[in-house]
Amino acid sequence: MSDVNPTRVAILGASGYSGAELIRILLGHEGVELVCVTSRSEAGRCLGDVFPRFRGVGVADSLKFIEPDIEEIVATGAQVAFLALPHGVAAGFAGSLLEAGLKVIDLSADFRISDAGVYEEFYGIVHPDPALLAEAVYGLPEVRSGEIAQARLVASPGCYPTSVILPLLPALADSLIDPASIHVVSMSGTSGAGKKADASLLFAECNESLRAYCVPRHRHLSEIEQELSIAARQKVTISFTPILTPVTAGIYTTVYAAAQNGAQAGDLERSLGNAYGAAPFVRLLGENIPPDTKHVTRSNFIDIGWAYDSRTGRFVLMSAEDNLVKGASGQAVQNFNLMSGLPQTSGLIGL
Amino acid sequence: MSDVNPTRVAILGASGYSGAELIRILLGHEGVELVCVTSRSEAGRCLGDVFPRFRGVGVADSLKFIEPDIEEIVATGAQVAFLALPHGVAAGFAGSLLEAGLKVIDLSADFRISDAGVYEEFYGIVHPDPALLAEAVYGLPEVRSGEIAQARLVASPGCYPTSVILPLLPALADSLIDPASIHVVSMSGTSGAGKKADASLLFAECNESLRAYCVPRHRHLSEIEQELSIAARQKVTISFTPILTPVTAGIYTTVYAAAQNGAQAGDLERSLGNAYGAAPFVRLLGENIPPDTKHVTRSNFIDIGWAYDSRTGRFVLMSAEDNLVKGASGQAVQNFNLMSGLPQTSGLIGL
Amino acid sequence: MSDVNPTRVAILGASGYSGAELIRILLGHEGVELVCVTSRSEAGRCLGDVFPRFRGVGVADSLKFIEPDIEEIVATGAQVAFLALPHGVAAGFAGSLLEAGLKVIDLSADFRISDAGVYEEFYGIVHPDPALLAEAVYGLPEVRSGEIAQARLVASPGCYPTSVILPLLPALADSLIDPASIHVVSMSGTSGAGKKADASLLFAECNESLRAYCVPRHRHLSEIEQELSIAARQKVTISFTPILTPVTAGIYTTVYAAAQNGAQAGDLERSLGNAYGAAPFVRLLGENIPPDTKHVTRSNFIDIGWAYDSRTGRFVLMSAEDNLVKGASGQAVQNFNLMSGLPQTSGLIGL
Amino acid sequence: MSDVNPTRVAILGASGYSGAELIRILLGHEGVELVCVTSRSEAGRCLGDVFPRFRGVGVADSLKFIEPDIEEIVATGAQVAFLALPHGVAAGFAGSLLEAGLKVIDLSADFRISDAGVYEEFYGIVHPDPALLAEAVYGLPEVRSGEIAQARLVASPGCYPTSVILPLLPALADSLIDPASIHVVSMSGTSGAGKKADASLLFAECNESLRAYCVPRHRHLSEIEQELSIAARQKVTISFTPILTPVTAGIYTTVYAAAQNGAQAGDLERSLGNAYGAAPFVRLLGENIPPDTKHVTRSNFIDIGWAYDSRTGRFVLMSAEDNLVKGASGQAVQNFNLMSGLPQTSGLIGL
Repeated sequence: MSDVNPTRVAILGASGYSGAELIRILLGHEGVELVCVTSRSEAGRCLGDVFPRFRGVGVADSLKFIEPDIEEIVATGAQVAFLALPHGVAAGFAGSLLEAGLKVIDLSADFRISDAGVYEEFYGIVHPDPALLAEAVYGLPEVRSGEIAQARLVASPGCYPTSVILPLLPALADSLIDPASIHVVSMSGTSGAGKKADASLLFAECNESLRAYCVPRHRHLSEIEQELSIAARQKVTISFTPILTPVTAGIYTTVYAAAQNGAQAGDLERSLGNAYGAAPFVRLLGENIPPDTKHVTRSNFIDIGWAYDSRTGRFVLMSAEDNLVKGASGQAVQNFNLMSGLPQTSGLIGL
Repeated sequence: MSDVNPTRVAILGASGYSGAELIRILLGHEGVELVCVTSRSEAGRCLGDVFPRFRGVGVADSLKFIEPDIEEIVATGAQVAFLALPHGVAAGFAGSLLEAGLKVIDLSADFRISDAGVYEEFYGIVHPDPALLAEAVYGLPEVRSGEIAQARLVASPGCYPTSVILPLLPALADSLIDPASIHVVSMSGTSGAGKKADASLLFAECNESLRAYCVPRHRHLSEIEQELSIAARQKVTISFTPILTPVTAGIYTTVYAAAQNGAQAGDLERSLGNAYGAAPFVRLLGENIPPDTKHVTRSNFIDIGWAYDSRTGRFVLMSAEDNLVKGASGQAVQNFNLMSGLPQTSGLIGL
Repeated sequence: MSDVNPTRVAILGASGYSGAELIRILLGHEGVELVCVTSRSEAGRCLGDVFPRFRGVGVADSLKFIEPDIEEIVATGAQVAFLALPHGVAAGFAGSLLEAGLKVIDLSADFRISDAGVYEEFYGIVHPDPALLAEAVYGLPEVRSGEIAQARLVASPGCYPTSVILPLLPALADSLIDPASIHVVSMSGTSGAGKKADASLLFAECNESLRAYCVPRHRHLSEIEQELSIAARQKVTISFTPILTPVTAGIYTTVYAAAQNGAQAGDLERSLGNAYGAAPFVRLLGENIPPDTKHVTRSNFIDIGWAYDSRTGRFVLMSAEDNLVKGASGQAVQNFNLMSGLPQTSGLIGL
Repeated sequence: MSDVNPTRVAILGASGYSGAELIRILLGHEGVELVCVTSRSEAGRCLGDVFPRFRGVGVADSLKFIEPDIEEIVATGAQVAFLALPHGVAAGFAGSLLEAGLKVIDLSADFRISDAGVYEEFYGIVHPDPALLAEAVYGLPEVRSGEIAQARLVASPGCYPTSVILPLLPALADSLIDPASIHVVSMSGTSGAGKKADASLLFAECNESLRAYCVPRHRHLSEIEQELSIAARQKVTISFTPILTPVTAGIYTTVYAAAQNGAQAGDLERSLGNAYGAAPFVRLLGENIPPDTKHVTRSNFIDIGWAYDSRTGRFVLMSAEDNLVKGASGQAVQNFNLMSGLPQTSGLIGL
């Protein structure tokens, strides 16, 4: 239906949950031709066999997984590569793909932290390709659409960070809250842990279970604090506790922050409205209206509600997103759209 | 098996979830003879018909629900009455039952708030029987076992309050945390909302859903702050956000509080150990060990873990309990045991 | 993007689960302009307020529910009306809408049973408009695409019937199975029971619960046997047991039928292939490959697997569909597409 | 509380779900002293560390897992051993334990099939110890309480078999149904698959999923048909399809069977009543009353309902049990009680 040729796209590491979600979105994206999917474990099998959901749709019955070999990937004619690989692995591919002339959208953490030392501190490994860090753009479209549109290498944000940064950023930038007062609790669905055979993620272990993990220092703190600090124009350190909950998809984030400079609910609403009035995927629900993850699953929306508690002088900010869509693959496609000169919403309007 | 005669017990409002859980526990309690269950909606039907789970067990096939009429209740010979009635309703029964010589354990909020004005502020009604407030004992067995043992009227604490108060109390009493720094997020299963035909509680509305509610001021704040203030010897005001999660049973509470006076994890551990070393239903898991609701469901345990975050100077306290057991009916039976001179654990050792 | 004008569409009874699913699909359908949604309970509120999932999408923030008044519906210029109303109610609207020149797609049972006596037997009420029964077409697109394309009034099949009829029809038509040997067990998600405030459908009642209902005679037997009898060219009577399972969406059907005339797995596969080779929404998985509801939820696909048990001489047929999509609203849109001269897949390719 | 000394008990393979359930029950069993638990993977850790649910209960904080070494097991003084080991492995231990003077209750399939050839056919391995088959008693207490009470080696039945055999046995024995007409569909919770790190059992793969497996020939057919054939006094072959459903615990079985000799619902009810009137764990719900798994989870009950469909002349039998309790560990303890001269209900009355 489009006059222009679709962009040829490769997905590296397409057999996990983020990869599958990318495939789901891209199979319905009119501006995309999916030409390459890689997976060490599934090489040789076609998309529809690995993911029965996709059988009979587009190229799913013909396109086969290949090994993640740079030459073979380049030979498919791919113009853009999505990296849905583990951290530490993704950075090993980015440089070669860029050299071969592809643009790269990385869903791992490898290019999100601008400081290689902080990366090493939180991820426990020396950064595999620190030279690329300066070029990489932290791909939060609501904040850096211009930079993203010009970028060759975009680091698409993590699921928790997106859910924490977007509600907080305007209030920090507008000095409505005390940067030292931020307390966050986030609940996530189990797909966030990936498709790995781990007994603690079995249905019988997650069903009827609520449990915190990575207390008190989750890796995602590094990129959350990096971005909040930029907005606040000062170093921001926060408390963050992730909770595993028995839903497949979804992240629900609750943020407390102390109001300052006399800010109240109306000020917060104006600040959010100014920041996101034109953002197609941020829905501002209103004061005292909590979001609900079931209204955003499988869509690229993030819903934000808020309240002001006059008893404590604190704001409560609440956000809901699908961890695999706005928290991963949908946001990556939103970045792709910006990099490709397409409307941000291309391929992402499905509910 | 016991030498002494069992106590004859009545449950008023036995057709809801708390009532059913009371029945479940009391049917297996050797020190109890269940002689009366009331329910306006189920009057005339026997226990086993209303709750198929209980068919064939003890008196379940013979004991019939009656209307909640004081004379009829007294006529059953009941010595102790559990009130599993809505707030505002429970208080209408307590006085008459006490006059008739019964002891009363109220699971509603009616006698938890010692100040009738605060009750009216949070519950929106004038207290039905304020004269009894002075006599009522807030029934947290880990804190007031002596008073409970002497009481005629015990107000058994709410589910959220138990999960918040128990982890915080020792730290507040020992001045390890700043009372003005408390931020709480609690997740609850849907049974906490009761067995009422409300479309927002349908399976299809709760499954794959995470959502906050009653933001920013939940009713349970009143009793939480009352008890924390007593422990801290000053007025304590906190932030509290409840989240509805797709589990049937369980509450998971995460508390942030700023360390003060140089307190660190070891100090907190000692404080908790001193407070609860002899408490049969508090399990202290250890530093950086988050609890998991699936390990406490259907038991009367509350599991507590903690962490100290040196980056922020804050403690994280986490607790897990079954909202219907330690958060309601199990705790009520624990109070019953104390009031009856039985071991706290009688009838409550089941896993 | 289309050259032709979109069709103006009304949905009557749009506030339930089938109605919401229709809205979800039609908001993304390029050949449709949604001009009217009715609901007695939600009249006056806009789509996005009633269904937060739709906020910010298409007309969701501007289109308001109206009362189901024929004149007002006609005044919106609607050309096609979907009836997502309870049985008995839908038939009261169909005639007037047809008279006003609209085409009607009824998702209720009212026009599925060609014999008004059978309708009365199974639904317990006299048919409200039997004169229209002769004209109504049972809208299984895989069986009657030609008739549907010409119809003014289409009775879109029920969720269980679609899941039972599609796997069985070819084998019956080709005389591969004994029509007297059919035994069916179907499992359904709770959304199939509708969005009604019924305590037995609460999360706490459905979670961790498996239970049969309407044993031994469910209403859907009437349309299942009607369609199977047509295919078999003889009266077919079957056994059917529906089971409520804790999923929101999905129907899983297991069918046993005795092979006859020496039929084996290969014969069944050929029969299914001949019948559905060109059907865009039937996916034939293969011998001994059971379907899985999670691969079809939110899509209009029905997945079918089968096995031949030489020990008993019986076939096992298994199907999986989304009860609200292929089992209700997706199929209704598939019928709409046929009636509108559009490809069957218009607006239905989303995954 | 008991006058007699408790029996010293060992559990081999105690780290899986059946083993954990055995521990849960035996920790509350007054006639049992748990003296030994084995697990290759958990050797050296105490019960409460491996299963946080058990912390603080009985011996859970002191008893440590040991390697499954016969000498060490015998050295603990154990008088009875429960084998919660995989099939093929259990049979390797039984003989040595019997020789050492222990009684053995095997929860695996190893001693359930009296014909070693059938075992090999269905389990794909040569039976490790066929000489013991003649001595082993198939431990269905409702059928063979006398033999069980005398046995040294009891093969405790599987979860599916218990749910299928108990409802069918009386009707077959009393010739009310045609043995050639049996069609079974059973739904199981995921704990039935065991605690193994298998990606297909992850929460994100099982949630919102219904799927058949092992079609058309599940291993449990061998013991089901063996027992049904004994009751029917002829070879019985049935159809059986297991379905994996998103519950942790529970099996729901639906059985169709053609009435014969003019049998109707009343005859079936009498037959069931005669067979199970004195069975403490079989609850006969009544005609047209389907059971519900949520009423039997964590209890040793099996609930049975039934219907007669005059349209087809077939009975529908429905049963619900907890797959880990009546379907495994509870039944094993029921057998233990019989073998120990205790009431069948000892330690099993918990709800």
